Amino acid sequence: MNNDTICAVSTAPGQGAIAVVRVSGQHAIAACNTIFKAKNNTRDVLSQRGQTVSFGNIINQKGETVDEVLLSVFRNPHSYTGEDSVEISCHGSAFIQQQILQLLIANGCRMAEPGEYTQRAFMNGKMDLSQAEAVADLIAAESAAAHKLAINQLKGGFSEELNRLRAELLDFTSLIELELDFSEEEVEFANRDQLNTLINHIELVTTKLINSFSVGNAVKNGIPVAIVGETNVGKSTLLNRLLNEERAIVSDIHGTTRDTIEEVMTFGGVQFRFIDTAGIRDTRDKIESLGIERTFHKIDQATIVLPVLDSTRSITELTQFATDIVEKTSGKQRIFIVNKIDSLTEEKRTALQALPVLMNEPCCFLSAKFGQGYEKLQQALITAANIPEIDASDVIVTNARHYEALLKAQEAILRVIEGLNNNISGEFVSQDIREAIYYLGLITGGSITNDEILGNIFHKFCIGK
Amino acid sequence: MNNDTICAVSTAPGQGAIAVVRVSGQHAIAACNTIFKAKNNTRDVLSQRGQTVSFGNIINQKGETVDEVLLSVFRNPHSYTGEDSVEISCHGSAFIQQQILQLLIANGCRMAEPGEYTQRAFMNGKMDLSQAEAVADLIAAESAAAHKLAINQLKGGFSEELNRLRAELLDFTSLIELELDFSEEEVEFANRDQLNTLINHIELVTTKLINSFSVGNAVKNGIPVAIVGETNVGKSTLLNRLLNEERAIVSDIHGTTRDTIEEVMTFGGVQFRFIDTAGIRDTRDKIESLGIERTFHKIDQATIVLPVLDSTRSITELTQFATDIVEKTSGKQRIFIVNKIDSLTEEKRTALQALPVLMNEPCCFLSAKFGQGYEKLQQALITAANIPEIDASDVIVTNARHYEALLKAQEAILRVIEGLNNNISGEFVSQDIREAIYYLGLITGGSITNDEILGNIFHKFCIGK
Repeated sequence: MNNDTICAVSTAPGQGAIAVVRVSGQHAIAACNTIFKAKNNTRDVLSQRGQTVSFGNIINQKGETVDEVLLSVFRNPHSYTGEDSVEISCHGSAFIQQQILQLLIANGCRMAEPGEYTQRAFMNGKMDLSQAEAVADLIAAESAAAHKLAINQLKGGFSEELNRLRAELLDFTSLIELELDFSEEEVEFANRDQLNTLINHIELVTTKLINSFSVGNAVKNGIPVAIVGETNVGKSTLLNRLLNEERAIVSDIHGTTRDTIEEVMTFGGVQFRFIDTAGIRDTRDKIESLGIERTFHKIDQATIVLPVLDSTRSITELTQFATDIVEKTSGKQRIFIVNKIDSLTEEKRTALQALPVLMNEPCCFLSAKFGQGYEKLQQALITAANIPEIDASDVIVTNARHYEALLKAQEAILRVIEGLNNNISGEFVSQDIREAIYYLGLITGGSITNDEILGNIFHKFCIGK
Repeated sequence: MNNDTICAVSTAPGQGAIAVVRVSGQHAIAACNTIFKAKNNTRDVLSQRGQTVSFGNIINQKGETVDEVLLSVFRNPHSYTGEDSVEISCHGSAFIQQQILQLLIANGCRMAEPGEYTQRAFMNGKMDLSQAEAVADLIAAESAAAHKLAINQLKGGFSEELNRLRAELLDFTSLIELELDFSEEEVEFANRDQLNTLINHIELVTTKLINSFSVGNAVKNGIPVAIVGETNVGKSTLLNRLLNEERAIVSDIHGTTRDTIEEVMTFGGVQFRFIDTAGIRDTRDKIESLGIERTFHKIDQATIVLPVLDSTRSITELTQFATDIVEKTSGKQRIFIVNKIDSLTEEKRTALQALPVLMNEPCCFLSAKFGQGYEKLQQALITAANIPEIDASDVIVTNARHYEALLKAQEAILRVIEGLNNNISGEFVSQDIREAIYYLGLITGGSITNDEILGNIFHKFCIGK
């Protein structure tokens, strides 16, 4: 393990009133002692007690004051990383932050890699891997639900259960392997009934966790919603209205792995991710012909589809489009948007409400332009999202890495169940149990001995965490 | 004075690993006690000692965990504001920051105004006004020199001298005013020689400070540089080269009081502010005619002018342009840029170097396109900027408000000197001394009793400081 002392600015970049520089590692306190002079002059950093704060100056090599700061000392193991750590709370100018980092580097520290503080916390046993990953999720959480899931995971309820099951599996596999040593004697140390019960329980748990991923993923990354419709039916007006109403909590995800820009907005505590369907700009004829595959690929990614109808068009046209959409989006949640009701006669409205193709579909009559019916649409979206109320005790998988590990673990578990049912040799059963143990351990980090895997996980963190 | 408890996020907005929420005021500790539960559970915030840090959870009204945080307590008067204060170091998600602020507000705090923490520090005598203003300058400082000036001002050397002189003036004016009470008896409590000496000393000091403002202002706001020249001589290429070379420390000042966008860059520890002279795009004939006033108005604001010559043009043309520029920019520092030397023959170069109009002008021969000669230009700019090496003991005025107060104080002082020389009545001398005292006091805040003035000063601060 890496024993050097690392430093980084942990607060957001840009100009704030204050910024915090974090230093961690065995020379953290000594390095800070060299560059810090307390105002009261009575004590130095070396003798400063853990979890106390000093007020003083950062002094450079020329003896000049760089800044007035607050300096908090945390002593191993009572720190985030489990190492000796110092947090320097300085004025928020980029220049000062840079100067302090340079001074620390001149005194033997090096710049921290992304996520390196949390990686050290994991390496030093302060948290398991799924908790460490929850830290990154917590920082990124934009909705109440995503935040709750991250906090639950950080608290470790998830890993606790997995670790317990994994430990029980380990006990059984040891017993089975012991039997193999005495194979000539046909002894049975591992009670097959108990093993059966355990394995079936684990299968239930992994299935529950695997199933929870669709909710977890939707909460964490937002419910994907596609707005579709012909040209000039008011798709962008609708999108703008949704975004304008919620401008304060809107952000763009410039996907590094995605090739489109998606608009994210949160209401009712649920995050929605609106997928750009600019491709579906063509007339219905074109959709039906060659454009169909490309445009509907995007609809495929959506959980909810919002087909937008221009209510001023002819009943025949609208029926045709709605029929098409229902056909092409089977299996999706649909909320039909009957737009432009500001120009709608009562007669036409009644006719639209009686359209057979829409009779059994959720419909929102609205005017994207003037905002009528907008709240009803929000409510319909929240209903369609169908995010269950999340409880502090719920264990929900939000992490794609955990999901994959669970799938692999479950495959192995199912083979164990099959093996036990068919009374196959303990050798093979043991091998499958070992595999399940391995994959369960990937989630909490127990079976990760490979630095590359850890590196991949922590490099997605931000610098300074 | 306002006694309520304020809260704000003090770190830069946006997503960082951590963020800091500051709470200050008489209920700060009680409010935080309601929302915080220490991990070790052995003590609450009420009993937490000043300048210590606790690890624990922020808990909302429903009993749910909002975040794991570090909580530092500072007890009156040992805090930045001089009040009871708490700093909550939380995870850097906007959602969490918002939740914590909302909880604090639900517990009787209110959102802090911009600069309100520093304003309270001033009101509670933790710093004088010029030191408080130095805090804002420190946060905004982008160059080493600007940073050094702000730190010097923060340390209070500036105010100390002014306060001392102001106190001596106060003593004298009291004595003179005492004389007035005994005016029938023709006594002289105030030694006129000593007063003369003091007043003349103060005049020297204010003059020195007033003169330092040109340096202070240049350091703080950057040396204004105008790049001028005809179309296609390479002005924008030159600007881009300068900016590209220094991209990391470039920022745009979208002036709220200025109507142009200016590019700021720092090299050699000096900040330069390049003034957009897009207006001077016309041919020389136009410059000479109606365009001249508008375009040269911008040049007027510059300390340094960079006239750009396209060396491939005819000697006649170049001579004409250079002669014009020299005429129109008298009193400015000029550095002629002889551009496009990559296409220049040795012969032409010699001819250009021998041009009478350029013989006594600093010239940089360069290729903006290929970067040749760029370092020499940087050096020439630093030389032309002529910023003296600033010492920790130098007192330099950087603040326009201080500059104006000093000018007013000096006017009064000069009237006092004149009055003493002419032996005018103590009544009038005393009045002028009072005026000088008042204006000197505006700088350190001693004579500010008006909330509006303070409000104007602190509202320029950022939120959370």
